[in-house]
Amino acid sequence: MNAYRDLRVAVLGCGSVGSQVARLILEEGDELAARVGARLTLVGIAVRDLDAPREADLPRELFTTDADRLVLGADVVVELMGGIEPARSLIVRALEGGADVVTANKALIAAHGPELRAASEQVGAQLSYEAAVAGAIPIIRPLEWSLAGDRITRVMGIVNGSTNYILDRMDRFGDTAEDAMRVAAELGFLEADPTLDVEGYDAAQKATILASIAFHTEVPVDKVHREGIREITAEQIETAKHAGSVIKLLAVAERLAASDGTPGVSARVYPALISRDHPLAAVHEGKNAVFVEAEAAGELMFYGAGAGGVETASAVLGDLVSAARRHVVGGPGMLGSNHAALPILPVGEVTTAYQVILEVRDQAGVLATIAGLLAQHGVSAESVEQSVPADAQGTASLVIGTHRAREADLAAMVDDLRASDVVTSVVSVLRREGNA
Amino acid sequence: MNAYRDLRVAVLGCGSVGSQVARLILEEGDELAARVGARLTLVGIAVRDLDAPREADLPRELFTTDADRLVLGADVVVELMGGIEPARSLIVRALEGGADVVTANKALIAAHGPELRAASEQVGAQLSYEAAVAGAIPIIRPLEWSLAGDRITRVMGIVNGSTNYILDRMDRFGDTAEDAMRVAAELGFLEADPTLDVEGYDAAQKATILASIAFHTEVPVDKVHREGIREITAEQIETAKHAGSVIKLLAVAERLAASDGTPGVSARVYPALISRDHPLAAVHEGKNAVFVEAEAAGELMFYGAGAGGVETASAVLGDLVSAARRHVVGGPGMLGSNHAALPILPVGEVTTAYQVILEVRDQAGVLATIAGLLAQHGVSAESVEQSVPADAQGTASLVIGTHRAREADLAAMVDDLRASDVVTSVVSVLRREGNA
Repeated sequence: MNAYRDLRVAVLGCGSVGSQVARLILEEGDELAARVGARLTLVGIAVRDLDAPREADLPRELFTTDADRLVLGADVVVELMGGIEPARSLIVRALEGGADVVTANKALIAAHGPELRAASEQVGAQLSYEAAVAGAIPIIRPLEWSLAGDRITRVMGIVNGSTNYILDRMDRFGDTAEDAMRVAAELGFLEADPTLDVEGYDAAQKATILASIAFHTEVPVDKVHREGIREITAEQIETAKHAGSVIKLLAVAERLAASDGTPGVSARVYPALISRDHPLAAVHEGKNAVFVEAEAAGELMFYGAGAGGVETASAVLGDLVSAARRHVVGGPGMLGSNHAALPILPVGEVTTAYQVILEVRDQAGVLATIAGLLAQHGVSAESVEQSVPADAQGTASLVIGTHRAREADLAAMVDDLRASDVVTSVVSVLRREGNA
Repeated sequence: MNAYRDLRVAVLGCGSVGSQVARLILEEGDELAARVGARLTLVGIAVRDLDAPREADLPRELFTTDADRLVLGADVVVELMGGIEPARSLIVRALEGGADVVTANKALIAAHGPELRAASEQVGAQLSYEAAVAGAIPIIRPLEWSLAGDRITRVMGIVNGSTNYILDRMDRFGDTAEDAMRVAAELGFLEADPTLDVEGYDAAQKATILASIAFHTEVPVDKVHREGIREITAEQIETAKHAGSVIKLLAVAERLAASDGTPGVSARVYPALISRDHPLAAVHEGKNAVFVEAEAAGELMFYGAGAGGVETASAVLGDLVSAARRHVVGGPGMLGSNHAALPILPVGEVTTAYQVILEVRDQAGVLATIAGLLAQHGVSAESVEQSVPADAQGTASLVIGTHRAREADLAAMVDDLRASDVVTSVVSVLRREGNA
């Protein structure tokens, strides 16, 4: 084993992922050396507090609080601190020094991906971030490389485990939203402040990264249309189940043409109905999956653990081996590519289908009024179901499934339904994806 | 676009995959050039018959019958002729000439993978074959690279679309085996001679390739234990359904320890029961999927089209872009690796679980006799169900689910059951995988 040269690896951060990465580098040294063709030497782990408890048993002498110094002289820097600063500055410094960088920091890549990719390309170093989206699931590399000769048309992902856990409990055990949230929090699926997950911010960061890679276009996170699951009720889940569907929080990135014909890209996050026959419907608990449609390959799906220290560490180590191989065989790093530079279209330009549940007056001519209103907006109904008989107040419940139409038209239609005399209440509006 | 240098691409074979690959190289020239950083020039397509009809409209002047000459001077050779010779010799010649080679030829890689990998490594060229297993699904690259820092313990794939189509019809529409085969043949899912599919030869070739990559060990195809679906009956499918399971033809590659503790590898193909909760159970029609278990990453699944001209062309183009990038950026090709060189264990050493259906005499003491017989072989029953009442002949039907045990012990147990006085017939013996 002494025939191998050494590569110096610095790890920044020692939380649940960092401690597992450090442990695996130490424990799997021989195996990694055989795969890389060089020995990976862990030169240090940068932490804020030398005495904090760690999830893995790591030699104390590896810890340092001097991250700045640690990145100097490292061949590969593995950034697992999270947050924007000082992670961003340390990565830039590492790249400028010629080191390859591996990171799992989705917030950073979503916010500063273009700048960091440019920094890596300038020096011919490699920046990789497989673990930033969907944890252990290899999705970045397949999108960038395996499908490099194809044309991706659509990416639909369940990329937030916490919200999937909540929706799955509501679907499978009939939990109320409140109960499901409580259980998710108890089991550690939710942060103390669940806003990032529940409001879709986390999924939107991942949508940015997926859209950028799939469409060779920079997609800023503030251009991602975002709706969370806060409003989803047990009744909506029940109605979905009755219709053979399930509600999932989806991150959707799509290549499409605007109404004037301009090609563009849409990225959005919202809860949507998915048919139970769709592969995404079988993604339970905290699992993640990314469903990809490409012109030649057709439909593909990538499924696995979206979070967890050791699971995410697997993706980090895959990137680490790839970066280390680059040091051994030479050549510049893999290039990101924004050559397509398509415009980012607003959600109104998207073509989608709606399920609208209305409470309407139970009187003659109501259906005709509503049908006329749909027609005004160029929306056609695929199905109309009067789901419960008229109640004592003289109202009935209508479930309308529309055909696909422009989002802007669908939204205007819903506004008009809301304002209509015959509609007493708009109970639920959900998109339908994957032919739900 | 003229700033790009040219890379010479030769395509060998112009069947359903070859014609799509050639078409895409021609049609997507600008897009591919942007991703590669060089223009891919299709210098020729080697065919046997210049006048045969083609699935894509391709310029006639590209066709040649002189494959030998075509590979000389090509930067990347894409072999899509199939079969062993002349494909093998042409690939060796191309690699020796320094060209990178992309192939979808599973039979060739299964039979001559080690020799061809050695030839590519000797000259630092790249040999890639993403399309050889599971068509459009990126599985080779994720196994080789994304999981390079992890330790794969098990790979279970539905890798033959024809047999999955047949089993899926039997399960979902209640077809007899005969009817399902006839429909599969009518829809083009089966070759004129269905033996390669139905007897599991095709799946065994893919198991060889998956096992070799997952475990860094050469696994010759004749060491793959192989059972096909010829014996699967509508009754077995029905019994499986009743028990919440489905029968799938699985290619399994597993890292395990022999009974004497030796670490080794098992590769096998057989129809097995899978619980309907398992992600592989939802793989319908001719789709493929590969389920991977790794120590750190946990469970992953890769799903998509396992065959089809344009779908498979997507995987070929991904490899082509990767090979072309290597020419642009320099450096040797990706190395295969057989450094682990684990022994290949016979199927008897595998630990698995059985479902055994027996017809037994309906008399006192039968259950005790059978339980005693299981115990003799160190096999314990997880469930015993008397599934139908005794019939006029005085026999009853017993469905036994065993706990996991050594295959050799299970097989000996079945032999003894067959020989037992109280057993009138062994109706069905199936493995149970994925906690079915």
